[in-house]
Amino acid sequence: MGGFTCQTSHSTRSRRGAVTLRLVDIDEDALRDDLATLVGFGAVGGSEAEVAIQHWCAERLTSLGLEVDHWRVDLDEVRAEPDYPGEEVAREEMWGCVAATNSDRPAVILAGHVDVVPTGDIALWDSDPFTLTSRDGQWRGRGTCDMLGGVAAIFAAARAVDHASLTRTFAIHTVVAEEDGGLGTFETLRRGHAGDACLIAEPTAGRLITANAGSLTFRLEIRGAATHGSMRRSGVSTIDLFPRVLAALDALEDKRNADVPTLFGPLPFPISIGIVHAGDWASTVPDRLVAEGRYGIRPGEEFAEAEALFEAHIAELCDSDPWLREHPIEVTWSGGRFAAGVTEPDHAFVHQLHELTGAPAAGAPYGSDLRLYVGAGIPTVQYGPGDIAGAHAVDESVPIDEVVRCAAAYRDLILARCT
Amino acid sequence: MGGFTCQTSHSTRSRRGAVTLRLVDIDEDALRDDLATLVGFGAVGGSEAEVAIQHWCAERLTSLGLEVDHWRVDLDEVRAEPDYPGEEVAREEMWGCVAATNSDRPAVILAGHVDVVPTGDIALWDSDPFTLTSRDGQWRGRGTCDMLGGVAAIFAAARAVDHASLTRTFAIHTVVAEEDGGLGTFETLRRGHAGDACLIAEPTAGRLITANAGSLTFRLEIRGAATHGSMRRSGVSTIDLFPRVLAALDALEDKRNADVPTLFGPLPFPISIGIVHAGDWASTVPDRLVAEGRYGIRPGEEFAEAEALFEAHIAELCDSDPWLREHPIEVTWSGGRFAAGVTEPDHAFVHQLHELTGAPAAGAPYGSDLRLYVGAGIPTVQYGPGDIAGAHAVDESVPIDEVVRCAAAYRDLILARCT
Repeated sequence: MGGFTCQTSHSTRSRRGAVTLRLVDIDEDALRDDLATLVGFGAVGGSEAEVAIQHWCAERLTSLGLEVDHWRVDLDEVRAEPDYPGEEVAREEMWGCVAATNSDRPAVILAGHVDVVPTGDIALWDSDPFTLTSRDGQWRGRGTCDMLGGVAAIFAAARAVDHASLTRTFAIHTVVAEEDGGLGTFETLRRGHAGDACLIAEPTAGRLITANAGSLTFRLEIRGAATHGSMRRSGVSTIDLFPRVLAALDALEDKRNADVPTLFGPLPFPISIGIVHAGDWASTVPDRLVAEGRYGIRPGEEFAEAEALFEAHIAELCDSDPWLREHPIEVTWSGGRFAAGVTEPDHAFVHQLHELTGAPAAGAPYGSDLRLYVGAGIPTVQYGPGDIAGAHAVDESVPIDEVVRCAAAYRDLILARCT
Repeated sequence: MGGFTCQTSHSTRSRRGAVTLRLVDIDEDALRDDLATLVGFGAVGGSEAEVAIQHWCAERLTSLGLEVDHWRVDLDEVRAEPDYPGEEVAREEMWGCVAATNSDRPAVILAGHVDVVPTGDIALWDSDPFTLTSRDGQWRGRGTCDMLGGVAAIFAAARAVDHASLTRTFAIHTVVAEEDGGLGTFETLRRGHAGDACLIAEPTAGRLITANAGSLTFRLEIRGAATHGSMRRSGVSTIDLFPRVLAALDALEDKRNADVPTLFGPLPFPISIGIVHAGDWASTVPDRLVAEGRYGIRPGEEFAEAEALFEAHIAELCDSDPWLREHPIEVTWSGGRFAAGVTEPDHAFVHQLHELTGAPAAGAPYGSDLRLYVGAGIPTVQYGPGDIAGAHAVDESVPIDEVVRCAAAYRDLILARCT
């Protein structure tokens, strides 16, 4: 969260160019209570808590004096849309939630997802991931960084603004299903909710993220030949084949990251395997291995083009091996489909945010709902508390002061665009 | 099943030295029916079918005119025994089954396990694994080779012998829990069932297996650091660490198989990983990988000695890596513990079997209940239909003629030892 210094008066630009924010009217206790409640839901993608947390958001936003559109999504209908962004979890029920000061077109949308990723091995956590704790200036719990801290900051900003004094409208979107593809925002936009500009409160470590790499979720299925482990050379172990697949994906990753576009840091388009399952008996040579992972997509790259490149690379590996030539690895594309998305860094909205926060523009390697808002013609920037490097991690946490300062920045953004 | 030729008269040694067996009084239809029933149970270790199949064996053996001891095992008690051989599945109920012509000490035991390993990916099977089919001279289905074919052959031998004509006793042991450690035979021997010699009808591809390598089941737990897949270099992927572990185990395997004892073929003490599970989200760098596998044990090698060698090898790997040095791989020894076991190849029982079958003696890389019988002072040889290379495999099968010929050989063994 570089560029901030703390001050209790109104926001102003200091002589050194750093922006100071007036923090005194951010109700930290209410912010913390909201965050504790949000974390407490444990709204892992596809869980019943994903429904409950949206009900709660609708109630909370109503209690803040906003008009709320809270609707049950017709999943059959949205899944039949040609641009359906995909899902990676079983999901039986989904709700949307949009709050606004009135029904006019909003001058700004503040958006965030309230679904979280699973905890991983819960034994690795210092304390219950779904109970908010404070330590060393950090709030800790699953989702504090990605991105319930940002959502709680949005709520705090709405609480800090005198709605009656506004001449234009602001809106808040809370969505689920972001982590597994973005179906929540897809549905929100499909319902017609729009605005002149959008800020997503994803963790950005003090930067204005104006460009996202995209990503596709791939699934590899490797076939071997089972036999008893004592005769392992008479079978073909998929586990023994797997390191060659890893090496091939590393080589493809190197190739795709050789030239890095402006604004992006190193390795903006990684290939990362997140899940591997092979075998069901310790003394049997496993004849099947399934791996799922994330494939970074370059701005401007078509999904079909990226998929073909990946498939050709795996096919080349298979051609080089006598077993795999006869039993080729199966590549499928299930789950989330995040296109890359770009808001031009010299857009007026980016300049406005830079003026308010002092934060620099940057590109991010991760996909987000940014590409959906941008795809709907809404200039969108990510700016929120925490660092994505701590997202999805054990003992996930967010610096408390960053959450509070972001709340103040969101308040100032509302004031700048709506008065 | 080398060394056999088919003839419809009584067993005899031909001029060429090959043994011919009288097959006409083996009731092939009854044998096939028994095998179809046994396969139909789908008695995967730990399943309820493991109980049902033992009830059925007790009934079938009673119907063959044998006295049957069929008892429910006190699992708490047997698990508290100092030499408890371990289990790899959850098991709530277990039954023993011993049949004999009378209560005298048997001159020979014919033994087999009726539990089977899981099917693996059922979609890979040509037909339902738990429905016996015949094709190309083979019976096919889970367990046909390992070792329901052998058990059905034992039943057929018992059916082919006139019990009233015997001057000494023979016994049949059917057990479960062999595949995950040998608890069934451990309990059977603990109950006091013994005999002068034992034949186990495990698949031996026409050989007399007089020595088994042992095996231990190991579990490796690798710890990494989770992060979002888009920032994978800011985390530590356990999947990326895994190939180094595989390479280290390959090196240890090479070392332990450099000198092969008499009777054993190449690679008698392999190290084979059967299960790998890592991660729970495609776009999260996985912070935990668990692998389970089988570690071949040399004859005469103490478990503790073998475990220490393995652990030292993994510790050496960890020492060579900055991350693993701080987060060492955890090695645990759960599940089956099969000591190596040896019946001396010049034992009179081995000679007798060689006379009856013409089969050569050999050592096998896999563990079995042989080591438990040998440990109880009972000279034991494995001899049965099928090839272990087809055990635990998809479309597991056993040559029909081998099953029938083994049934005839078992009949002749009973006659040779009990009249």
